[in-house]
Amino acid sequence: MADPRFFSVQGPFALAELARISGARLNSGADGDLAVRDVAPLDTAGPGEISFLDNKRYAGAFLESRAGACIVEPELAAKAPSGMALLITDQPYKAYALVAGAFYPMAGIDEIGDPDSPIDASARIGPNAQIASGVVIGPRVEIGRNCRIGANTVIGAGAVLGDDCTIGPNVSLSHCLIGNRVVIESGARIGQAGFGFAPDEGAYLKVPQLGRAIIHDDAEIGANTTIDRGSGPDTEIGPGCMIDNLVQIGHNVHLGRGCIIAAQVGFAGSTKLDDYVVVGGQVGFAGHLRVGRGARIAAKSGVMRDIPAGATIGGFPAVPIRQWHRQSVALTTLAEGKRKGG
Amino acid sequence: MADPRFFSVQGPFALAELARISGARLNSGADGDLAVRDVAPLDTAGPGEISFLDNKRYAGAFLESRAGACIVEPELAAKAPSGMALLITDQPYKAYALVAGAFYPMAGIDEIGDPDSPIDASARIGPNAQIASGVVIGPRVEIGRNCRIGANTVIGAGAVLGDDCTIGPNVSLSHCLIGNRVVIESGARIGQAGFGFAPDEGAYLKVPQLGRAIIHDDAEIGANTTIDRGSGPDTEIGPGCMIDNLVQIGHNVHLGRGCIIAAQVGFAGSTKLDDYVVVGGQVGFAGHLRVGRGARIAAKSGVMRDIPAGATIGGFPAVPIRQWHRQSVALTTLAEGKRKGG
Amino acid sequence: MADPRFFSVQGPFALAELARISGARLNSGADGDLAVRDVAPLDTAGPGEISFLDNKRYAGAFLESRAGACIVEPELAAKAPSGMALLITDQPYKAYALVAGAFYPMAGIDEIGDPDSPIDASARIGPNAQIASGVVIGPRVEIGRNCRIGANTVIGAGAVLGDDCTIGPNVSLSHCLIGNRVVIESGARIGQAGFGFAPDEGAYLKVPQLGRAIIHDDAEIGANTTIDRGSGPDTEIGPGCMIDNLVQIGHNVHLGRGCIIAAQVGFAGSTKLDDYVVVGGQVGFAGHLRVGRGARIAAKSGVMRDIPAGATIGGFPAVPIRQWHRQSVALTTLAEGKRKGG
Repeated sequence: MADPRFFSVQGPFALAELARISGARLNSGADGDLAVRDVAPLDTAGPGEISFLDNKRYAGAFLESRAGACIVEPELAAKAPSGMALLITDQPYKAYALVAGAFYPMAGIDEIGDPDSPIDASARIGPNAQIASGVVIGPRVEIGRNCRIGANTVIGAGAVLGDDCTIGPNVSLSHCLIGNRVVIESGARIGQAGFGFAPDEGAYLKVPQLGRAIIHDDAEIGANTTIDRGSGPDTEIGPGCMIDNLVQIGHNVHLGRGCIIAAQVGFAGSTKLDDYVVVGGQVGFAGHLRVGRGARIAAKSGVMRDIPAGATIGGFPAVPIRQWHRQSVALTTLAEGKRKGG
Repeated sequence: MADPRFFSVQGPFALAELARISGARLNSGADGDLAVRDVAPLDTAGPGEISFLDNKRYAGAFLESRAGACIVEPELAAKAPSGMALLITDQPYKAYALVAGAFYPMAGIDEIGDPDSPIDASARIGPNAQIASGVVIGPRVEIGRNCRIGANTVIGAGAVLGDDCTIGPNVSLSHCLIGNRVVIESGARIGQAGFGFAPDEGAYLKVPQLGRAIIHDDAEIGANTTIDRGSGPDTEIGPGCMIDNLVQIGHNVHLGRGCIIAAQVGFAGSTKLDDYVVVGGQVGFAGHLRVGRGARIAAKSGVMRDIPAGATIGGFPAVPIRQWHRQSVALTTLAEGKRKGG
Repeated sequence: MADPRFFSVQGPFALAELARISGARLNSGADGDLAVRDVAPLDTAGPGEISFLDNKRYAGAFLESRAGACIVEPELAAKAPSGMALLITDQPYKAYALVAGAFYPMAGIDEIGDPDSPIDASARIGPNAQIASGVVIGPRVEIGRNCRIGANTVIGAGAVLGDDCTIGPNVSLSHCLIGNRVVIESGARIGQAGFGFAPDEGAYLKVPQLGRAIIHDDAEIGANTTIDRGSGPDTEIGPGCMIDNLVQIGHNVHLGRGCIIAAQVGFAGSTKLDDYVVVGGQVGFAGHLRVGRGARIAAKSGVMRDIPAGATIGGFPAVPIRQWHRQSVALTTLAEGKRKGG
């Protein structure tokens, strides 16, 4: 379930009620009285939870899911694991947004503390912390020993910081768990809602973003970098990652241990890097990719496919680096011929 | 005229005085005593107003303009509509900067409220607003019902917010009109002066930025995104637009209804998107383009030409998506042949 | 030596002690008792200072350096200027990090003023300044005449601003010297630590960032732009530079006079632009490049080589602009042939 530090769950709801809320229909034989107590991702959902499938990429997770119920398109209904109840609809992502909104009606509404108590009375702040002027610390925040928090930084309700962290000025943290010895430079934004919405008759329906942003020990986050929290799964930055300025990290992205991410790189949602990946400046990653351990990506590349461990790639679309160099040479030769010939 | 919520106009000025201020010369027959009361864009200027033409792209608007006076290059003087007075100069943009600076000498100087009153006494805040700690609200700001303003956010003089808006922490708003149910994530910057200056003997002369940033109902603006106000016209974000993190929107850009803009996209000035355009991450748009309804632009593309409605394009320079795919295949084949052939 | 406004030096250290700290070995004949009083870049270091060489690009500076000692790889030891003591190691950058950390143990720890005195008693603020609500001004800050500081902006310990500066809201300044008439838009981050670390057995060792960010007269810095301070040398923005929003400027970058940098451009470390260079939006520069006076770089280019004065270049990798246009035409023709030929 969504972390109760940050999200308050309603329900349970009867499955028939969720069908009504979402405009989906129950599969034949499903028990409309089934009590559903939460939403959850396909791979972690259990019997009392409801999940959804909207991306064929995750059909395998659907086949193996232990979710009590799942929202799917009609053509997938026949493939469901036995005993899984189904909510069937042509718009599973929209239906999920409505169901998740029923369980978490306040997910998009950040808690605002008492304006006259910048540091909330319920916050727990460890020994030897240095808190600069103008810092706002919300309800139930926990901060470890020896942390330094720069001026005018805002730490939202429920956030947790470990020991020996250095947070710059004008930073915003929310819906996050931060490890020990983490450095966050000025203006970074961590834990805000990611970019999730479903088309809804010419408008867009927001999909509640129910995960967290988890920053592991010794990571460093650059100035004005943005790290959205997960949509249900978490967004995770591995131990010792070095992330430069103005980087965008979408919801559900995972970076392994010791990744190096240069400035202005962007990760679309749910892309996962293994350990020690090195990424040059201004690289863009499509969503839902897998990048193997120790891969290296040249600056400004556009990555549209999975990358095997140890590979070095470059270009747009990105290809193995030697192939990219050959492409550049071939293109130069071709253009030169054009100039001479005509 | 520039919105008096944000800008205070001087004048009127006699046309001859504006010629003197700008270093331009009056066309023969013009009435130097003509009282000019304001600057205005070519397409909206009336008889008592002065405009300028600096980009051939807008020659059509010049021919049809009802402006009382216009600043132009010598070669365009003969094409002016009859009855339009002219200020003739080799540097119309610089001359306009000087004239606009005469009418709006304070345009670059944001009003700073009383430091001891973070929420200005003249601000009007609707019922049921929740204002977090450290929020600064300037003179004459208007905020509707049920708005939530995150900690340490700054709302500059004269800004207007509708009902049910959610503004994150550490946001800066100025020179803007915000609709209802708008969501603005942490660290977004809306309404600051755009990138406008004229060369002036080895230096640059700032051009007063006299427009607003208008964010229509139900739009969502991502973390650390920047939306400059217009230069004279407005910058506008259409109803229900979804804009992700770290996006740059230059002055006078218009987005239609329901556009989806992924992270780190950049729009140079005056580009206009029709409704329901979908833009992938890290795309860049040159200035002064037109993009038709429902067009789709692949991530990381560089858009240098107008795009027709319904088109799907990609690449750098961006071309129709199938053409881009053929280019990628052709380049791969070419490089492969190079490798094999030696 | 590092500017004592911002950094406090320890030492001196005996050369043998620095060898021990860094895990390097002294060259034969070196005087282990030599008193070393500071670290310094190769080109400015003097007899009592220690420098390092980690990038072959700077071998020339090594040959001419007057540094009393230098950290180098074994294969370069034989080339050292006569009389220069050497610390020899396979990992000179890591060894430098350890040595610099001995001299400047607090370099990564920004001074936090008294939380109850947002404007530190030791700050000197010139006449006619306007300081908005929520501004935090650290110890020993100096601000000239007629400056305007927007709400919730943070100015860190020791920073210097000249006269007539306009600083927007929610800005962070530290470790910087700002000239006269400088304009800094909302959310800009200037002077934070740059992206410097050495591999260290599966983790990364931070390299103290000991330089400053120097912004010369009349420069303008856009919203949410990030300018890191130098690593030892300074980062410098020349007089009258116009820098748009969301630009990334890495450590030790120098921009000459009057450069124009459009939005979302990124500069990796130590790249240097001469005067009046014009850079389109979303361009990326590799590190350690030289760009000649008046060069022009088309939007979205990826610059991987030095650029001569006056050149106009474009593309990725960037080439002379006509060559880029020929490449685009050739590629279109090639892909078209592919389509027709089957």
